[in-house]
Amino acid sequence: MRFLSLILAYLLTSAATVGAQPAPATAADAPPNIIVIFADDLGYGDLGCFGHPTIRTPHLDQMAAEGVRLTQFYSASSVCTPSRAALMTGRLPIRSGMCSDRRRVLFPNSGGGLPADELTIAEALREQGYATACIGKWHLGHLPQFLPTRHGFDLYFGIPYSNDMDRASDAPAGRAAFQNPQTPFFQVPLMRGEEIIERPADQTTITRRYTEQAVAFIREHREQPFFLYLPHNLPHVPLFRSPEFAERSPRGLYGDVIEEIDWSVGQVLSTVKELGIQERTLVWFTSDNGPWLSFESHGGSAGVLREGKGMTWEGGMRVPTIAWWPGQIPAGQTQPGLGSTLDIYATSLTLAGADLPSNRPIDGFDLTEMLTAQQPSPRDVVHYYRGTRLMAIRKGPWKAHFITQGAYVGDTQPHEHDPPLLFQLEHDPGEKWNIAAQHPEVIAALQAAAQEHLQTVEPVPSQLELPAGR
Amino acid sequence: MRFLSLILAYLLTSAATVGAQPAPATAADAPPNIIVIFADDLGYGDLGCFGHPTIRTPHLDQMAAEGVRLTQFYSASSVCTPSRAALMTGRLPIRSGMCSDRRRVLFPNSGGGLPADELTIAEALREQGYATACIGKWHLGHLPQFLPTRHGFDLYFGIPYSNDMDRASDAPAGRAAFQNPQTPFFQVPLMRGEEIIERPADQTTITRRYTEQAVAFIREHREQPFFLYLPHNLPHVPLFRSPEFAERSPRGLYGDVIEEIDWSVGQVLSTVKELGIQERTLVWFTSDNGPWLSFESHGGSAGVLREGKGMTWEGGMRVPTIAWWPGQIPAGQTQPGLGSTLDIYATSLTLAGADLPSNRPIDGFDLTEMLTAQQPSPRDVVHYYRGTRLMAIRKGPWKAHFITQGAYVGDTQPHEHDPPLLFQLEHDPGEKWNIAAQHPEVIAALQAAAQEHLQTVEPVPSQLELPAGR
Repeated sequence: MRFLSLILAYLLTSAATVGAQPAPATAADAPPNIIVIFADDLGYGDLGCFGHPTIRTPHLDQMAAEGVRLTQFYSASSVCTPSRAALMTGRLPIRSGMCSDRRRVLFPNSGGGLPADELTIAEALREQGYATACIGKWHLGHLPQFLPTRHGFDLYFGIPYSNDMDRASDAPAGRAAFQNPQTPFFQVPLMRGEEIIERPADQTTITRRYTEQAVAFIREHREQPFFLYLPHNLPHVPLFRSPEFAERSPRGLYGDVIEEIDWSVGQVLSTVKELGIQERTLVWFTSDNGPWLSFESHGGSAGVLREGKGMTWEGGMRVPTIAWWPGQIPAGQTQPGLGSTLDIYATSLTLAGADLPSNRPIDGFDLTEMLTAQQPSPRDVVHYYRGTRLMAIRKGPWKAHFITQGAYVGDTQPHEHDPPLLFQLEHDPGEKWNIAAQHPEVIAALQAAAQEHLQTVEPVPSQLELPAGR
Repeated sequence: MRFLSLILAYLLTSAATVGAQPAPATAADAPPNIIVIFADDLGYGDLGCFGHPTIRTPHLDQMAAEGVRLTQFYSASSVCTPSRAALMTGRLPIRSGMCSDRRRVLFPNSGGGLPADELTIAEALREQGYATACIGKWHLGHLPQFLPTRHGFDLYFGIPYSNDMDRASDAPAGRAAFQNPQTPFFQVPLMRGEEIIERPADQTTITRRYTEQAVAFIREHREQPFFLYLPHNLPHVPLFRSPEFAERSPRGLYGDVIEEIDWSVGQVLSTVKELGIQERTLVWFTSDNGPWLSFESHGGSAGVLREGKGMTWEGGMRVPTIAWWPGQIPAGQTQPGLGSTLDIYATSLTLAGADLPSNRPIDGFDLTEMLTAQQPSPRDVVHYYRGTRLMAIRKGPWKAHFITQGAYVGDTQPHEHDPPLLFQLEHDPGEKWNIAAQHPEVIAALQAAAQEHLQTVEPVPSQLELPAGR
C-alpha cells in the first residue's frame, strides 16, 4: 500500500500540473513560498477529513490527500489575540505581553498591541527578499503603530479585530444580535493598508473578498518568493457567508460558512497549481483556537476532544491542521507528531534561510524534517497557558492539568488540582480517565518540566491591559 | 476538483490492476461478489478516516479514498446478537425474536438462536448460485440447529459467540480478567463447520487466522459469485493481537488490535485486486455497535457522538462504515445519506438478482443507487430499539428520544421524556441541544411515525430468553 501511495502522490502531482506552465528551472533551490491559512474558532472536529459527519470540505480533504494531516497540533492559546501573537513571533504570549488575566484579547478600546521589538515572520522573511501580505483578521492592535504594515507586511487588507466587536447601540442584547447575518449589528471596519475603506464592513462577502485579494497577490508574486498570511474572520460568530453558499450545507449556517472557507482553500491551491509553483509553495491550514461551544449550533465542534475555546482542555487548543507541499511532503499521510503554531514561525524562517533570533527565547521548532521526511517531531512539550497562568503541560503523551477552569458559561472559577489531573492523551484524547494515582513519577517529571519552563519566563507589561489613546 | 477526483479514481484502479490478470469478459454482467467485514464494538471515532488522532488505519483510509465513507450509517441495535440478526435478515430484531428486555444477547447457556424460518442473506444468495462463507463471530445461536451451516453458509470457521464468554472458574473477578491478553481466562471454542476444533481458542492469532481463511475462500471462488461474511471477534474485550502487532500503536493495546484489523482489510482488498475481480466485488466495512466505553482505554471511542454500546444515543448505534467497489462506486466520496446494516441485506439481494421476501416485513432498503450514482438515500427513518422497546426514532435529520437509559455503569434506569427530547442530528451530531420546545410540530410527526411503525410489529417469542437444552 505504501507503493500505491507513492504512485498516487506522483500521479496527483502530475495530474495537477497538466496544462500549467513549468516552474522556473531554479525553483528547486529557491526558498519556498509560504502560505498560512488561519481559520477563526474552527474546531478540531469541523472538517470532513477530521471526522465531521455532515460538514463537507472537499477541497480541504483533497489538500489532506495530497499532503499531511497533523492530528496533535496546537495553537499557543485558547483565545484569539495571544494565539495570533504566538504564530507571528514564535514566542509564547507570556513573553511578548500579549496576554492578560483581566482582558483575554484586545478590544476596540484597547491601547496596546504587538510590541515593535517583536520580530514577526513577515519581518524575517521580508529581510530574505520575500513579498509579504496579511489578508484578513489581524487582532494584534488596531492603532496605527501596531498594524500589519508596521510589522513587516507590504500589504494589509482586512478587519483589524474580531467580527463581533463594535456592536451598534441599537443592537439587541445578548445572543440575539448574532442570529441575523443580514443585519450589521457589528460595525467593524475594513482596512486597506492603514486606511479604513468600509464601515461597517460587509461581512456577507468578506471570505470571498479575502480570497480574491489572496489570489491576486499570489498571481502578482509568482516570480518572487512570497509569504501570504490569510487569517479568515470566520467561522467566529456572528456567522456570514456569500449568497451562493446560503443554505447549502446539511450542517446549517455554520456548515455553509465552512463550505465557503473550503472553497477559498480550493481557490488558493488551484491558483498555485495553475501557476506551476506548487513544488515551491508550502501551504498550512489551521485554526487559532477551539470552537466557541456556548454558541451551540452557531459554534463548531471539537470532535472527540474535551471542551473548546477559552479552556486548556484539548478542545480549546488542539486545532485541525494540514500541511501541503507537493513533491516535498509525501501525499496522504497522517502525522501524530507534536506540533504548534509556534513551529510555523521556526519552520518558515529556516526554510527562508533566516536565522532564528538569538537575543530572546524562541518557543518554536523547525518541523521541516517531520513534514518532508516523516522524522520524529523535535517538539516534546506543549505549554497550556490561560492568560499569564500555566494551567497544564504536556510532555510526550502525558498531560498534567494543574488548574482547570471553564469559560463563558456555567462554572468559570479556577479549580486547582493537587496532585494534578493526569491524562495519557494518545490513549485518551478525550481526557476522560484521570490516572494520576497510578503514575506519581510521571507527575513529578511534568512538574519539574513546568518549573524549568517557568524559570525562562521574564515578566513584561501586558499589552492587553493598556487603556485606549496611548 | 471533481475532475481531479475522477482522474484519481481512474488512476488508482489502473495502478491497482497492474500485473493482475484481467477479470473474465462476462464479469460486468455477472452478479457481484459481496464481502461484509464486521468489526465488534468498534466505535464511530476509531478509524483514522473517521477522525481518530492516534489510531492508524492506512488500509481502511485507502479503502475510503477508493470508495465511499458513510457518515450516517446505523446498526439496528446497540448490542451484539440483535445487531447481527438484523444484518443477516434485513429485519428489525423485534420481528425475529432476537431481542429481549431481560438478556440483551445470547450466552453459552442460552437455548435459542436465529429461527429456521428467517431467510438470511446467505440463503438468498446461495439460491442465486453464490458460494457462501461465514468466517468469524456468529452469535446467533451456538446449538447445532442455529449455526451458520444451517443458515445458508457453505463454510463456517470461527468463535460462535463473544470472546469474553466461557469465563474460567479460576479467572479473577471483574475487569482484572480482561487486562492480561496472554492468559485464556475466556475459554471460548473455535469451530469449523459444526465441530469444535480448539478450546480455548487461541485468540492471540484469531484475527490473523480469520484473515487467512477469508483470503483462501476468495482465491478458491474467484470464478464464481461469492458472499463472504467476515465478522471479527475484536476489538471486543478482552483484547488480543498477533505478536507482530504488539506495542505498535500510539493508542496502546486497543490501537494494536485495530491496526491488525486494518491489516486484515488490506489483505482482503489486495487479494481482490490481485485476482482482478475488484470491478465485480462490493466490499462493506462496518461495526456491530458502538464502543464499550466502560472499559476505558480497552474500549473504543464514538468520536463526536454521545455515549456508546448498549445505549440508543448516537454513539451506541451509528457505526463507521465504508463501501468499496472500484468502477461502480466513485472514489473518495463522503456520503451523509442515511443507511443501516439492514440495508446491506436488501442491497445484497437486489444486486444478486434475488427478490426480497414478500411474506414478511423487510426493514432494509436497496442502497445501490445511493452508492453508485450518489442518489438520495431511499431511507428516511431509523428505529432505535433497546430490547423490545422503541426508545427513539429518527426521521430525516430529526431524532426524538422517548426514553433514555444508561448501560453497564452509573445510572442504568430508564428515563421517560414527555415531550421527548428532540435533536437535529445534522446540526448537532453530539445530541447536546434539546430543541423540543421550539419544534412541537416535528415531535408530533415523529410520534406519528413511531406509532405507524409499531403497528407493523407483531409479537413473537424471544429467542434470548429460552433456557439451555431446548
